[in-house]
Amino acid sequence: MEISLSPEQIIEITQPLERSGRTDREIRNIAPLGDAREGELTFLHEKKYRNDLEVTEASVVLVPRDCGAEPAANQLFLFFDNPSVALTRLCSHLESRLRPRPAPGVHPTAVVADGSRLPASATVGPFCVIEDGAVIGENSILEAQVFIGRGSSLGADCRLMPKVTVMDGCRLGDRVTLQAGVVVGSDGFGYTSDAAGHSKIPQVGGVVIGDDVEIGAGSTVDRARFSQTVIGEGTKIDNLVQVGHNVKIGRHCILCAQVGIAGSTTLGDFVIMGGQVGVAGHLKLGSGSQVGAQSGIGKSLEPKSYVYGSPAIPYMLRQKIIVLEQRLPDLFRRVDKIERGLEKAFEKGAEKG
Amino acid sequence: MEISLSPEQIIEITQPLERSGRTDREIRNIAPLGDAREGELTFLHEKKYRNDLEVTEASVVLVPRDCGAEPAANQLFLFFDNPSVALTRLCSHLESRLRPRPAPGVHPTAVVADGSRLPASATVGPFCVIEDGAVIGENSILEAQVFIGRGSSLGADCRLMPKVTVMDGCRLGDRVTLQAGVVVGSDGFGYTSDAAGHSKIPQVGGVVIGDDVEIGAGSTVDRARFSQTVIGEGTKIDNLVQVGHNVKIGRHCILCAQVGIAGSTTLGDFVIMGGQVGVAGHLKLGSGSQVGAQSGIGKSLEPKSYVYGSPAIPYMLRQKIIVLEQRLPDLFRRVDKIERGLEKAFEKGAEKG
Amino acid sequence: MEISLSPEQIIEITQPLERSGRTDREIRNIAPLGDAREGELTFLHEKKYRNDLEVTEASVVLVPRDCGAEPAANQLFLFFDNPSVALTRLCSHLESRLRPRPAPGVHPTAVVADGSRLPASATVGPFCVIEDGAVIGENSILEAQVFIGRGSSLGADCRLMPKVTVMDGCRLGDRVTLQAGVVVGSDGFGYTSDAAGHSKIPQVGGVVIGDDVEIGAGSTVDRARFSQTVIGEGTKIDNLVQVGHNVKIGRHCILCAQVGIAGSTTLGDFVIMGGQVGVAGHLKLGSGSQVGAQSGIGKSLEPKSYVYGSPAIPYMLRQKIIVLEQRLPDLFRRVDKIERGLEKAFEKGAEKG
Repeated sequence: MEISLSPEQIIEITQPLERSGRTDREIRNIAPLGDAREGELTFLHEKKYRNDLEVTEASVVLVPRDCGAEPAANQLFLFFDNPSVALTRLCSHLESRLRPRPAPGVHPTAVVADGSRLPASATVGPFCVIEDGAVIGENSILEAQVFIGRGSSLGADCRLMPKVTVMDGCRLGDRVTLQAGVVVGSDGFGYTSDAAGHSKIPQVGGVVIGDDVEIGAGSTVDRARFSQTVIGEGTKIDNLVQVGHNVKIGRHCILCAQVGIAGSTTLGDFVIMGGQVGVAGHLKLGSGSQVGAQSGIGKSLEPKSYVYGSPAIPYMLRQKIIVLEQRLPDLFRRVDKIERGLEKAFEKGAEKG
Repeated sequence: MEISLSPEQIIEITQPLERSGRTDREIRNIAPLGDAREGELTFLHEKKYRNDLEVTEASVVLVPRDCGAEPAANQLFLFFDNPSVALTRLCSHLESRLRPRPAPGVHPTAVVADGSRLPASATVGPFCVIEDGAVIGENSILEAQVFIGRGSSLGADCRLMPKVTVMDGCRLGDRVTLQAGVVVGSDGFGYTSDAAGHSKIPQVGGVVIGDDVEIGAGSTVDRARFSQTVIGEGTKIDNLVQVGHNVKIGRHCILCAQVGIAGSTTLGDFVIMGGQVGVAGHLKLGSGSQVGAQSGIGKSLEPKSYVYGSPAIPYMLRQKIIVLEQRLPDLFRRVDKIERGLEKAFEKGAEKG
Repeated sequence: MEISLSPEQIIEITQPLERSGRTDREIRNIAPLGDAREGELTFLHEKKYRNDLEVTEASVVLVPRDCGAEPAANQLFLFFDNPSVALTRLCSHLESRLRPRPAPGVHPTAVVADGSRLPASATVGPFCVIEDGAVIGENSILEAQVFIGRGSSLGADCRLMPKVTVMDGCRLGDRVTLQAGVVVGSDGFGYTSDAAGHSKIPQVGGVVIGDDVEIGAGSTVDRARFSQTVIGEGTKIDNLVQVGHNVKIGRHCILCAQVGIAGSTTLGDFVIMGGQVGVAGHLKLGSGSQVGAQSGIGKSLEPKSYVYGSPAIPYMLRQKIIVLEQRLPDLFRRVDKIERGLEKAFEKGAEKG
């Protein structure tokens, strides 16, 4: 990221409520409050860091209206109801400059089947492959080396980063973003087994991905055995996540990195999972459930459950256990002592008796 | 997946023992018993769901002979010894229709080294790279964007999905299936370390993959430091699994998603691992061992071990501990009470004494 | 790996201090001491395996000077201060033979933007894409199907294996090795959420990777929200590791396979993590810290911490807990017995009283 923004440009982009101080420095970077130096822009996003305002060397600082601090020499404070929103506005501006929308059109090296449908507004990068019967929506962008299999469809305004693979028979909604290396529609993991080994169960279903879904780099979504694996509208999935066959994920869920969900499990809406969570197959996780990082879920969850641990149990109980298990060495000593005490008491009792 | 099958076609493909009822609906989808609607086919695979037969709206239902239920109006029941086998037969038929074998031949964009060997029966998709000395077996299919490194070989009837990478010096047997994005033959993770840092140990071995192995999307198999990393015949590996250098996996093992096996560990035959299991290096896991999801294995296992947890211990003991650890808050209270009781008793005793 | 080395060639490459015995066998493989057969070379790397020297069938054996064993008939022992170093020397020789440096030059199929900078000494393989403003250092090698985004730069002597993706605005130092399928610069996972769903926070930062870093197959490194995600000089990262946005990893760290580090966490130098470790966001892990496999880190760590478990606590305490939790069934029985004993005693006391 190489930025070069004048204080005036920043004011124009972020539209502060007020300002205080001034700087003649060009802004070349954005940095957290604790790290920012001259020529950089920073921001206060939580009040508890307010004291850092007194010492920051940043040239431009986005602050809430009631921050109670004053700019130093050659420093500009810009005041907002919510500095984070202002920062996002600034970053969106930078994004459009740093990563401009590629021009529509098909790169001459791309291999596009005659039987596919591709609007003039779409962009197809070098070495993409679009197979027969595939349909690409308006304004969608396929970066380099993307693969779209037979009969798959993308809605409008999708963005598929380099090396995304969408196998055959999958359906993506509008504004779906797939980060580099995502695989959608790989075969589900299903075999019938006997003493001679494992025979593959054909996986003839597809994958349906709702509008506004984003999937992180290297994640994999298996096609259904039959019918569909589903990822609901607005759900956001981080990197290296595995979604098994016939899984149904609801709307607006958040799955952090390296989560794995085994086949045929159903998630409601607004389910949140921390990193590296594992979920067994054929379960139902109710809407609004929250799952702590590294948890292992072996049972279905009621809506709005809050669970943690491997195996996952109610969060508060798990926290209690975590505290108590660290007191196990002490507990064993206490029980040893009780036993010794009782033994002695009984000996005495026996002597007396 | 877009199906269109008449009831007559389904009867012809699945060859039921008997039938009952009739439907005039064309079948457009397969769905689980609990979800299926008119125009869909479903099946009963476990007796405990028998009651769902009474209420399903599915137009065609595959059932066991003794299911004891009757078709509703405009509903066709087909009877089998094993409805799952019939379903697999149907899905295999659909698979051959939905995902037909691509025609043999090399796509004009593929880069195939003169020094490689490629039979006329093989298929090589767009943007594949086949390096010098590589050998592809009869009827093998390389989908788009596959890479085969110097001197690597594939047996007959292999299928490598888009973006598979097989580095140099690796050997695949017959009927090996690699899902999209699999990497075979990446360098093992080996360094000699001192206070100045870490120096790479050259990784000059290869990878040998047996017949009928399948590896899931995004999984990685490292080449050996020397000699070979081995995956035995018939073993099935799910998505995002990591197989370290010099690992030897036996025949007909099942590794679920996101398993990681560290260097030089050996698995016997028919070992089964749940998702997200981690195995330390230089261990021996005996044939027939089963490992619960998210387990962490730090010690070698006898054949037919059944272990669970992190660290993994015998399954029954782990289950007992899981139950007991949830009773820890109660246990601490009980010990507190005992101590208080004894204290009082001794006080009384002292008063009396 | 197909080797063919005469005993004389091996002597020339490894330069032993002394030798004993002789063999007329050509060496065709390297194997561990326990497995090696005639025609193979092996080595003794730990004294505890010394007895295996008596029975090995290997034709050439690298041994320490004081190994105290004698070669069998048709067997050659080569003596070294450190046989592992000799083996590495041999493997390096083999590597240069098996995997020779590709010739400099740009493959005619590669798509290289006019506005990029590429020295004559660099190698660019088939189907690579180098976007506008990208800079490739001297002698760097891009294997097939690599993608380098707008304005990204590579130092000298880098090696990017097939299907590596470096998104726009990232900076790699010298001698960086990225194994197949690595993604650098995917968007960080950041959203602002409300009852209506999640809005993406633009990710406009980059990734900076220091000299001599190696990253394993399929690993992903997210770009910063702003400023930089950093991987320090000499750090080695294994396969399928996730590095979140704005993470700063110090110098000479070791991250084993499937580790995940959430956003904005900072690692010092020489931090070592076992496989499948998960680290929460916004933490500081001090230099020299060591983290056992599958640990989950939810709190910052002092330098040289040694922690283990999920949640991670000091290693020795975790080990103690692991032992004690296996004695929980016994502890519950003991407390049951104490309670019953006391009840009886009180009953008796009541009878007496």
